Amino acid sequence: MHTAYAELTRHYLRLYRYDHLASIVGWDRNAMMPPKGNEARAAAEAELQALIHRGRTDPRLAELIAAAEAEPLDDVERANLREIRRNWQQANALPEALVEARSLAGARCEHAWRSQRPANDWQGFLENFREVVRLSREEARLLSGHTGLSPYDALMDRFEPGMRAAEIERIFGEVRSWLPGLIARVGEKQRAEPVIAPVGPFPVAAQRALSVAVMRMLGFDFDGGRLDESAHPFSGGVPEDVRLTTRYHEDDFTRALLGTIHETGHARYEQNLPRAWCGQPLGLARSYGIHESQSLSFEMQLARSRGFVGLLAPLLREHFGDQPAFDADNLYRLFTRVKPGYIRIAADEVTYPAHVILRFEIERALIEGEIEAEDIPALWDEKMQALLGLDTRGNYADGCLQDVHWTDGAFGYFPSYTLGAMYAAQWFATLRRVQPDVDGRIAQGDFAPVFGWLNDNIWSQASRWETPELVRRASGEALNPAHFRAHLEARYLGGD
Amino acid sequence: MHTAYAELTRHYLRLYRYDHLASIVGWDRNAMMPPKGNEARAAAEAELQALIHRGRTDPRLAELIAAAEAEPLDDVERANLREIRRNWQQANALPEALVEARSLAGARCEHAWRSQRPANDWQGFLENFREVVRLSREEARLLSGHTGLSPYDALMDRFEPGMRAAEIERIFGEVRSWLPGLIARVGEKQRAEPVIAPVGPFPVAAQRALSVAVMRMLGFDFDGGRLDESAHPFSGGVPEDVRLTTRYHEDDFTRALLGTIHETGHARYEQNLPRAWCGQPLGLARSYGIHESQSLSFEMQLARSRGFVGLLAPLLREHFGDQPAFDADNLYRLFTRVKPGYIRIAADEVTYPAHVILRFEIERALIEGEIEAEDIPALWDEKMQALLGLDTRGNYADGCLQDVHWTDGAFGYFPSYTLGAMYAAQWFATLRRVQPDVDGRIAQGDFAPVFGWLNDNIWSQASRWETPELVRRASGEALNPAHFRAHLEARYLGGD
Ligand SMILES: [Zn+2]
Ligand SMILES: [Zn+2]
Repeated sequence: MHTAYAELTRHYLRLYRYDHLASIVGWDRNAMMPPKGNEARAAAEAELQALIHRGRTDPRLAELIAAAEAEPLDDVERANLREIRRNWQQANALPEALVEARSLAGARCEHAWRSQRPANDWQGFLENFREVVRLSREEARLLSGHTGLSPYDALMDRFEPGMRAAEIERIFGEVRSWLPGLIARVGEKQRAEPVIAPVGPFPVAAQRALSVAVMRMLGFDFDGGRLDESAHPFSGGVPEDVRLTTRYHEDDFTRALLGTIHETGHARYEQNLPRAWCGQPLGLARSYGIHESQSLSFEMQLARSRGFVGLLAPLLREHFGDQPAFDADNLYRLFTRVKPGYIRIAADEVTYPAHVILRFEIERALIEGEIEAEDIPALWDEKMQALLGLDTRGNYADGCLQDVHWTDGAFGYFPSYTLGAMYAAQWFATLRRVQPDVDGRIAQGDFAPVFGWLNDNIWSQASRWETPELVRRASGEALNPAHFRAHLEARYLGGD
Repeated sequence: MHTAYAELTRHYLRLYRYDHLASIVGWDRNAMMPPKGNEARAAAEAELQALIHRGRTDPRLAELIAAAEAEPLDDVERANLREIRRNWQQANALPEALVEARSLAGARCEHAWRSQRPANDWQGFLENFREVVRLSREEARLLSGHTGLSPYDALMDRFEPGMRAAEIERIFGEVRSWLPGLIARVGEKQRAEPVIAPVGPFPVAAQRALSVAVMRMLGFDFDGGRLDESAHPFSGGVPEDVRLTTRYHEDDFTRALLGTIHETGHARYEQNLPRAWCGQPLGLARSYGIHESQSLSFEMQLARSRGFVGLLAPLLREHFGDQPAFDADNLYRLFTRVKPGYIRIAADEVTYPAHVILRFEIERALIEGEIEAEDIPALWDEKMQALLGLDTRGNYADGCLQDVHWTDGAFGYFPSYTLGAMYAAQWFATLRRVQPDVDGRIAQGDFAPVFGWLNDNIWSQASRWETPELVRRASGEALNPAHFRAHLEARYLGGD
C-alpha cells in the first residue's frame, strides 16, 4: 500500500499543471503580450502564484511526507520523495513575513539599481542593498537551521542540490592558480593571429532562417517547441513545449546565432527529460549548474569546436552571401577570441571563470558575515587586479554594480555558471574517452555520439540523483577542474 | 456595511483572474502551441477548469448572495449582484452527473459527426444525437425549474439574458412574411448587374499588411491586442489584451479581409468595456447577440456600405496592385451579392436570416418535445423550400448535418446570429436619426460618429442592463425588425 505516496504524487501533479500555466503565460508576457495587457496579467499571474504557494505549503503535506517515508517504495519512488521533500522544505522553511520582506526589499533595490548603475551611484545602491543583505542572511540562517548546512551552503543548495561551498572553494582555488597565467599566454598567442571581422548588415529574416536551420541541425524538435523573439532572450515553456526566444542584431549575427545555440542546449535537455516521470519533481531537470552544462556543451564544447565551425561556414554563406570573414579558419579564430574585460556577460570562455570566482568569494564572505556590503568595492578591485589585471577603482557601473543577481538576493547562484562550464568539459572528456572518433564525427555533421551520450547520462536521468552522484555516474569521477583546464589549453594554446 | 457584497466581489475578481489565464492559454493552444504540447496542455487546462468550477460552486456563495441582497447597495452594485446571481445559478443549476453525461454525449456525437457529415450518414448521426437531445431536454427542464422560464427560454437565457422565445417568434414570424419576396426581388435586380471577379493570387504578406491597415482604420488598439493566424479564426484573449486570429487564402482576399473586419467589431467591444467595472461580472460584454451586433455593425453596416467600400478600393490597389475588379462600384456589387444556398456560414446578409429562422423553429420544437430528432430532415426540407426555394431532400451533409452547434447540445444559440444582425440595423437606424450626416462622414473616412455612438450606448454599458433594457436605452424602442427590413431594402433594392 502506497496511500500517502500516491496522494503526494497527485498533489504534485496538480502543482506541475499549475506551473505549466504559469510558464506559458510568463512566456506570453515576455514574447507576445502587448503593453496594455500588463496590469491585468500581473494580477492574474500573482493570483496563480498565490495558488501555487498555497499548494506547496498545504498543512497536510508534512504528515503525508512522513507517512510516505514509512511506505515500501522502490528506488525511483524514493528519489521522487526526496525531491518532494526538497520542494516542501524550500516552500516551508521561511516564515511568510520574511518572504514578503525579502521580495519587497529586492524589488526596491532592483528598481533603484536600474538608474543607480548608469549613474555609477554605489552609495545610493548601498542604502537599499544593506537591507537585502540583512534579510538574505536571515534567510540563510533559517535555511541552515532546517538543513544543517552552513548559511551559504543552504542558499546555494537551492540552485545546486548537494554541492557545498568547501568543494567549490577547492575547485575555484585550483583554477585561480593557473587561470591568470593561461590568460596571459593565450593573449600572447592570439596577438599573432589577426581576425577578419564580418561585415553587416545581416537582415533579420536571414538570421531567423539561419537560427532555425542550426536548431534543426542540433536536433531541436519544432513539433515540441518554438523559436520567437523578445527583448531579453530566454528559454521558457514546459518540457512538453519548449519556448526559446532570441533577439537579432543587424550589425552582428554572432550574438543571436551563438545565443540560439546556447538556448538549444537548454531546450534539448528539457525536450528529452523522461516522459515517464513527467509531472513529478523527480522528472525535472537536475539543477542550474547541470542545465548550464547542457547549454555550454552546445555553445562552447560543440559549436565553437573547429569541426562544427567548418559546418557553419557554408551555412553562413548560404544565408548571408560570401565574404572573407566566412573562411572557416577565420570564423574559428573569431569564435575563440580572448580578451579580459570588465563585464561578465560579455566575457569569453577563458576569462569568464574569473568573473564567477570573484563573485563567489565575495558573496560567500558576505553571507557568512566575514565582510559587510561596504567592503565590496575594495575586494572587487583587488580580485579583478589579481585575476584579470584590470583596474576597476571608482568604476562601480562596470564593477560591482553590473549584475542584477545580488539586487534581489539571489546569493549562491553565480557558481552555477562556471560549474556548468566545468561539467561540460568533463562530459566531453568522458565522451572522447568512450568514443575516440567523436571530433571527427562532429566535423562530418554527425552528432549522434554527442547527443546519445548526453541523453543516456544527463537528459534521461532528470532528478534521479543529486548533483554529485549524477556527475560520478556520468563521468566516473567527482567534478574535476582538470578537464576544464585541459579543454582550455587544448583549444586556446594547442590546435583543439 | 457591505460585508457580504465585498466578499463576493473579491471572490469573482479571483475567478476573473483564473479566466484570464484560461483565455490566454486557450489562445496559445489555437494560435501558437506546437502539436506535441497538446497532451500536457489539455491536462493543465482541465485542472484550471476544475479550479474555476470549484470557485463558481463554492458552498459559501448562496449565503453570501442572500446576505448581499439585504445590504444597502447602489444601482451599479445591484446590477453586479444580479450578474453574480446569474453566474452562480448557471454553475449550480445542474447536478455534476448531468453536466458530465452531457459533455460526454456531446463529445461523442461531435466526434462521430466529423466523419458522418462527409458520409451523409443521418441514421448514424441519429444514434448519438438522440442521447444529446434527451440530456439537453433534461438540462432545460432543470434550468426551467430554477428560473421559472419555459424549457427553451431557459436554454436561450444562457446566451441572450432576458430574451424570450415568444418575442423571437413574433419577430422571426414577421421576417418570414417578407423575406422570400425580398430575396426574389433582389435576385431579379442583381441579374442585370454583372460583377467582375478579382484575380489572384493575393500574397499572404500583402493580405496581412492590408488587415493591419484596415484594423487600425477601424480603431483596433494594437497596444492592447494582437492579430495572428490560426486554422479556425477566432476572437480570444481578455478585454485588456484582445487576441484576434484570421486565416489567409491566397486565391480570395475577401474572406480574411471581411473576417478580420467582423472580428475587429467584437474586439472593439471588448477593448472598450469600462475599465472601472473590469474584474466583475458586471464588466463583461452583455450577450452573444449584442456581441454579434458589434461584429455585424462593423462587417455589414459599416464595411459593406458604399461609403466604406469607396475607402477600401485605394487600399486594395495599394496592397495588391490595380485590377478592374477594384473599381469601387464593382467592389460594392461584389460585397453585396445575394444568392440562396444550402450553407449558413457561406450565406450573404439577405439570405442568412432564413437559415437561422429555420433552425430556431426546429430546435425550439425539439426542446419543448413537440417533435423528435427523427422529424428534423422533413421539417428542414419543408422550411428550406418555403424560405429559400431549395430542395434538400436526401442531402443531409449540406442540410441538417452542416452545423456543429447541435452536436454538443448548444440549443438556444442560433437566434443570436440574426438578433445580432437586427440589433446592428437598429443601431444604425438610430445613429442616422441622431446624426443625419453619418453616411457622408463614413465616406470621408470619419468614423467618429459611429464609434462614439457605439461606445456611449453599447461598449460602455457592459452588463449594466439586461438585453431588452439595453436595446431600449440605446434606440428608444424594443427590438424592431422593421429596421433590419428597411436596411436590406435600402441596400439591396434602393441605392443604399
Ligand atoms: Zn544558459
Ligand atoms: Zn461573430
